[in-house]
Amino acid sequence: MGDPAGVGPELCLRALNCAEVVEHCVPVLFGDCGVLRRVAEATNQQFDAREQALAGLEEAEFQGDLPALICCSHLNEAEVQPGRLSVECGRASFGYVEAAIGAARRGRVHAVVTAPIQKEAWHLAGLSYPGHTEAFTALTGAPRSCMMQTSDPLTVSMVTTHVGYAEVPRLLTVERVGEVISLTAQAMRVLRGRRPRLGLCGLNPHAGEHGLFGEGEEERILVPAMEQARRSGVEIEGPLPPDAAFLLHVRERFDAIVCLYHDQGHIPFKMLAFDTGVNVTLGLPIIRTSVDHGTAFDIAWKGVASPNSLLAAIRVALRWASARQPPAPSP
Amino acid sequence: MGDPAGVGPELCLRALNCAEVVEHCVPVLFGDCGVLRRVAEATNQQFDAREQALAGLEEAEFQGDLPALICCSHLNEAEVQPGRLSVECGRASFGYVEAAIGAARRGRVHAVVTAPIQKEAWHLAGLSYPGHTEAFTALTGAPRSCMMQTSDPLTVSMVTTHVGYAEVPRLLTVERVGEVISLTAQAMRVLRGRRPRLGLCGLNPHAGEHGLFGEGEEERILVPAMEQARRSGVEIEGPLPPDAAFLLHVRERFDAIVCLYHDQGHIPFKMLAFDTGVNVTLGLPIIRTSVDHGTAFDIAWKGVASPNSLLAAIRVALRWASARQPPAPSP
Repeated sequence: MGDPAGVGPELCLRALNCAEVVEHCVPVLFGDCGVLRRVAEATNQQFDAREQALAGLEEAEFQGDLPALICCSHLNEAEVQPGRLSVECGRASFGYVEAAIGAARRGRVHAVVTAPIQKEAWHLAGLSYPGHTEAFTALTGAPRSCMMQTSDPLTVSMVTTHVGYAEVPRLLTVERVGEVISLTAQAMRVLRGRRPRLGLCGLNPHAGEHGLFGEGEEERILVPAMEQARRSGVEIEGPLPPDAAFLLHVRERFDAIVCLYHDQGHIPFKMLAFDTGVNVTLGLPIIRTSVDHGTAFDIAWKGVASPNSLLAAIRVALRWASARQPPAPSP
Repeated sequence: MGDPAGVGPELCLRALNCAEVVEHCVPVLFGDCGVLRRVAEATNQQFDAREQALAGLEEAEFQGDLPALICCSHLNEAEVQPGRLSVECGRASFGYVEAAIGAARRGRVHAVVTAPIQKEAWHLAGLSYPGHTEAFTALTGAPRSCMMQTSDPLTVSMVTTHVGYAEVPRLLTVERVGEVISLTAQAMRVLRGRRPRLGLCGLNPHAGEHGLFGEGEEERILVPAMEQARRSGVEIEGPLPPDAAFLLHVRERFDAIVCLYHDQGHIPFKMLAFDTGVNVTLGLPIIRTSVDHGTAFDIAWKGVASPNSLLAAIRVALRWASARQPPAPSP
C-alpha cells in the first residue's frame, strides 16, 4: 500500500476496483484497513475486500471475486494525515513490504507490486534502506540485483542508482556491468518471449570518442563486459554515445538499454514514460514491480493521482508471473 | 563550409539557394570553390556566387543579390573524397574558421555560422582544439565562454562539455557555474527580448535529495552560484532534480536550463530537437552559431542530409545580429 499518507492507498483502491486487474488476478493488499476506509471516503471510491489478520496469512484462501486485505497496521487518525511525514507511516509501510516479501517467498502470492513509500519516513523510523530496491534485495537475501524501468517506448536498466555522481566511476567494474547485462537479458527474455537485443551506454561524452574524453572506461570496463556477455549468448551493442542512444531510430533497435548511472537512464525514461513507467527489481528470488513515482504528498487523498503507473506495474508483474514458474510454496 | 568531405558543402549550397536566407542577409561562404562545384553537381544543386580570393577580403563588397564565396582552399580531387577523413580537409576546414573569425572581428561579417568539422581531421592536421567552441574561444581571445544549444522546445547551456565523466566534479566551482548562468542570462535576454527565467540542474540523483546522495555539490556550489546570480538580477530556480527538469511541465517554465555536464544537457536536447538544434558559443566578442550535428560521412555528397539545423543556426544568428549592435569595423 506504500506510505499511508501518500497517494498509495487511493491508487491501490483504484486497482482493486479495476475490472482488468480483478479479471486477471486475485489482488492481495498488504495495508491498513482503517486508512483504506478513510481514503475510500475521501476519494469517493468503493472499498470491498476480504479482511484478514496478518497472523492468519498462512491459512488464508486467496480466490474468488473479492480481493484480500491483509491488515498489517492499525494506525489511528492522529498518526496518519494526508501528506504528513510521520515515523508511524514509515514503520507501517515497511511492515507491508516485509509481510508481502514473506508471503511471496512462501509462494502465497505470485508477485509483489509496490505503491510509493516515503524514504524520509523510513529514515525517521530508523530503517537504513535507501529505498524499496535495497530493502527487497536485503530481505530476500539476493546476492545481486539491479533496477530496471520499463515502458512501451523505452526500457532501461541501471548499473548504479542511488549514489552520488562522483561515486559512479569507481562502482563500474567488468563484473558489475556484466551482472546487470545478464540480469537485463534474462528479464527481457521473459518479458519479450524471445532472445532480446540490448544496448549499453558509454560513460563519457560520445562514449569517449576513441579515448578522446574520459579515462578509458569504455575500453577498460564496458567492452570486456560486453564481450563476456556475448560469449554467454547475449546480443548486445555498444558502448553507445549516450546522447544518441535515446533517439527513436537508435532506441527502437533495442529491447532494453543498460545505463551506467541514475540520470543517464532516468532523464530519457521520464521524458518518454512520465506516468506509465514501471520499476522492476531484477535478480530477486521473487517477482517485484513498482510504480515509478513518489508519494505525491501534495495531492494525497484528493482522488486526482493517476493510477496509470500502478496499473502498468500490475500488468508487468502479471506478464512475468505467467511466463515464469512461480516459486513452490515451502512445506 | 566545415569539413569538405562531410555534409557541410551541400548544406551550405542549400542555404545559399534558400529564399528565406538570401532575403534576410548576404551570405558570405568561407570554403573551397572546386569542392563546391563538385558537390553542386553530385547533389544536383545550383551554385552561383561571387568568388573572391581570401587576400581580397578587406576590399570585397558584400551586397546585392549574389552570395559571396571566399576561396580559402584549393583542394584537388585526390585530397577530397566524400566521407574520407584527410589531413588536407582538416587543415582546410580550420582555415575557413580562421578566416571567418578574422572577418567577423574586423566587422566584415556580422555573425559566423559553422557547418560541421571532423575533429579527427583537425587532430591529424596537428590542431589541438577539441572542437569548434574551443577554437573560437582561443582565436577570439575570449576570457570565458560556454556552449549553449537552442531549439523551440528546449534551450540548454553547459558548465562543462567535452571532458570525461569523472573530471566534471572538480570543474564545478561557484565561479564557473556563476559565469555560465550569467552568459546564459545575457544571451536569452537578447534572444527573448525580455528578462529570461533560468533553471539550474543538480549534479546528483534527485539533486542530492537534501544531502542523501553526493558530496553536497548542490549546497556547496550550486546554491551559492544561484544566490550570486540572483543578486545581480538573474531570475533562476534550482537545483532541479535532473530527471524531472526536462519534463514538459517543468521545462516550459524556463527560457533556458543550465546543465553541469555534456550528457545531462545533450540527452534531453537531442531527444527534443534531433535535427533542428542550434549550437551557440556564448561569451565571444563575435556572434557564432553552428549546426548541431556532425559531418555525417556516411551520407556525404548524396544530397540527402537535412539542412534544418543549418537553417535554424542561420535564423538564430540573424536574430542575434539584429538585436545586438554589430561590432564596429576596425579603422
